[in-house]
Amino acid sequence: MAYRKTPKVQAQQAAQRQRLLDAATALVAEGGFNAMTIAATAERAGVATGTVYKHFTNKGELCAELFRCATEVEVEQVRSLVTQDGSAAERLRAVISNFAARALRGQRLAYALIAEPVGALVEAERLHYRRSYATLFQSLIQEGIDRGEFAAQDAGISASALVGIIAETLVGPLNWHDSRSTPQAEHLVPQLQAVCLRALGTESN
Amino acid sequence: MAYRKTPKVQAQQAAQRQRLLDAATALVAEGGFNAMTIAATAERAGVATGTVYKHFTNKGELCAELFRCATEVEVEQVRSLVTQDGSAAERLRAVISNFAARALRGQRLAYALIAEPVGALVEAERLHYRRSYATLFQSLIQEGIDRGEFAAQDAGISASALVGIIAETLVGPLNWHDSRSTPQAEHLVPQLQAVCLRALGTESN
Repeated sequence: MAYRKTPKVQAQQAAQRQRLLDAATALVAEGGFNAMTIAATAERAGVATGTVYKHFTNKGELCAELFRCATEVEVEQVRSLVTQDGSAAERLRAVISNFAARALRGQRLAYALIAEPVGALVEAERLHYRRSYATLFQSLIQEGIDRGEFAAQDAGISASALVGIIAETLVGPLNWHDSRSTPQAEHLVPQLQAVCLRALGTESN
Repeated sequence: MAYRKTPKVQAQQAAQRQRLLDAATALVAEGGFNAMTIAATAERAGVATGTVYKHFTNKGELCAELFRCATEVEVEQVRSLVTQDGSAAERLRAVISNFAARALRGQRLAYALIAEPVGALVEAERLHYRRSYATLFQSLIQEGIDRGEFAAQDAGISASALVGIIAETLVGPLNWHDSRSTPQAEHLVPQLQAVCLRALGTESN
């Protein structure tokens, strides 16, 4: 009979895996993916290096799983705002200010998630999650078109456009290696809201 | 006295390096970065595998150099269209139709350059070249604002927005792994032009 893990052992392992992901995420939030190593993660979580390898084959896999967990949180934030009451334009404005404010607060982590050069596994996850965002935006845009708030347009193409605008305009301000000054949310957010709403063909910007 | 290469040897080496880059680019155009290996590049160029390593340390370096060469061509195309005569809106429309048509024609290569998960070296180059495109767009947008063609806006932020829109809306249609049908330039290009021009606050879309 094959060895089976008891529920207690399973729960302990799941908790340890989560502690490792939390430790790795904290390291990325401090110094980007570059600063996150298997050894540093083990030290941060207070376990032996070998323990990390029981849960993740290598750094690339740990990066990808960390990326998925952190990005799921952001996608759910967007989903909850997109599905609220109010005009489509209002909800889009709320999504943008919420997403940008969270990104600018957790600047180093946000840059790591959105753009830091890290490797093919995380890149593939980025493509996947950009489509999750686009799917949410597409429903919102279609609703806005149907209500006469937005111009007639291909909601799928415009949804991709919104994902592109938001990611690309944040890359510069979030990259503390590059930025000569602290990103100024009070300037960036209204500009970003305005360019997105104009892109959808609404006058209410 | 240190050994110096004669001009003739230098020219031969430069020509060989270019043949290798051409062979590698042809492989990427057929099957993406994934299909491009040092061995396949050597075979394609009709040289021994070891010869490739005289010019490039590893596949990552060859990918990055190939990326730079191919992307420089695209940036120069955009530069030449941006600096032509005509209204800012007309030039932007020309940039978009030219860029999208070239991308959709060389679909596999364009996807590889814009979005294929390949590794940190190419990702870093992507960030660099996206800023080159943004710099070109920023001048064009500023000109459009000054002429009263576009709404008042932060031209730097809107330039990043254009880069994001164009890249993100092309990723789906270019990804032949994903796309259920051939990308239809005749539908995509006018939508892309319209969303970009609306984003800049012009009525002429």
